[in-house]
Amino acid sequence: MKVIELNESVTESNDRDAQELSAQLTKKGILLVNLMSSPGSGKTTLLKRIAADFDGNPKMAVLEADIASDVDAVRMEEAGVISVQAHTDGMCHMDAGMTRRGLEAMDLDGVDVVFLENVGNLICPAEFATGAQKSVMILSVPEGDDKPLKYPLMFTESDALVITKTDAMPYFDFDMKKCEERVRRLNPDIRIFPVSAKTGEGMAALEDWVRSALSSLKNKT
Amino acid sequence: MKVIELNESVTESNDRDAQELSAQLTKKGILLVNLMSSPGSGKTTLLKRIAADFDGNPKMAVLEADIASDVDAVRMEEAGVISVQAHTDGMCHMDAGMTRRGLEAMDLDGVDVVFLENVGNLICPAEFATGAQKSVMILSVPEGDDKPLKYPLMFTESDALVITKTDAMPYFDFDMKKCEERVRRLNPDIRIFPVSAKTGEGMAALEDWVRSALSSLKNKT
Repeated sequence: MKVIELNESVTESNDRDAQELSAQLTKKGILLVNLMSSPGSGKTTLLKRIAADFDGNPKMAVLEADIASDVDAVRMEEAGVISVQAHTDGMCHMDAGMTRRGLEAMDLDGVDVVFLENVGNLICPAEFATGAQKSVMILSVPEGDDKPLKYPLMFTESDALVITKTDAMPYFDFDMKKCEERVRRLNPDIRIFPVSAKTGEGMAALEDWVRSALSSLKNKT
Repeated sequence: MKVIELNESVTESNDRDAQELSAQLTKKGILLVNLMSSPGSGKTTLLKRIAADFDGNPKMAVLEADIASDVDAVRMEEAGVISVQAHTDGMCHMDAGMTRRGLEAMDLDGVDVVFLENVGNLICPAEFATGAQKSVMILSVPEGDDKPLKYPLMFTESDALVITKTDAMPYFDFDMKKCEERVRRLNPDIRIFPVSAKTGEGMAALEDWVRSALSSLKNKT
């Protein structure tokens, strides 16, 4: 498994870099999905489940971004998924240049979808475009239904919200309806997918959404 | 309830500002505790429990820091705790100048302990001294025992680690022994308090530690 060291990109415009990267990926028929969440929301478990369900069709790869450690990339590799671990040199988010360098370190031959597992942080990653054509935010049930009130930008910037660990609902005081209302007030067009990667509940709807984003992208190429 | 708007301090040295604030608070016999954690780790619930257990002795107050919303300060006020809500203008952490301005907005007459509920983020707050004499990190069981590997600085910078939501242990795959070993490898002197604010388990040890930090500070004045 490859581990690469990245540091912040010195560039005039991250937004322009992100647009360029996004256009190049679309041209190659590759969908990049930027996954953002708090630490411990279940991103890696979710990705392992998606990889098992996709089973090579579409072919997926994972770019793991972390300040330190390679635990997530090791877990992905154990699950048989192409992955690279990027270390952000203490940085609390990925920018477009870092994402580009991460992708360059991967073997993307035949790959259809790359998931960027952004640094676990509900704040800073929302401020930096990565070049992903889709941004997905993950909120886990144990974190609570009040998070849209506290971290509004993340909810505004995402195309989809995945609410993970729904199997833990009986154990926590999480009001799904209230949460959805709060999210839609910030972002009326967001797609919301409550899922349990453990039981598989809700996974098909999320995976269909990824497949459909991929085919509309492939139609463009 | 008071809500104040703060933005980043323009200052030469945050560390010097923090040392000054810390010395001034110690002189006044006030213990400031900087609480850092991920979003949704249970900081507010923990503080409500401590306030109920302290029951005015020592007298505590809470400075709530958030990007947006006042949900936490409202919850503290409902619990009868003196609190001020500080908005960080999008900033992902509190610095010493912001903390000073937050404290100036509070009525600290007779107050012994102020808890600063820092912005929910496992990365950036660890890089900025606030002026607190004690830094406490909170990690909740649902977040997972691998967090010390991924966010080492936060564990290195904290005097104590509170592991919350231990009542959810049967529901999650959290290895307490492994977690403690990982934490002690980063910070051999850290105090570790596994607690459940729901059942009260472990709270007394944590509260005794706060009381003891307070009395050794009062002895200095």
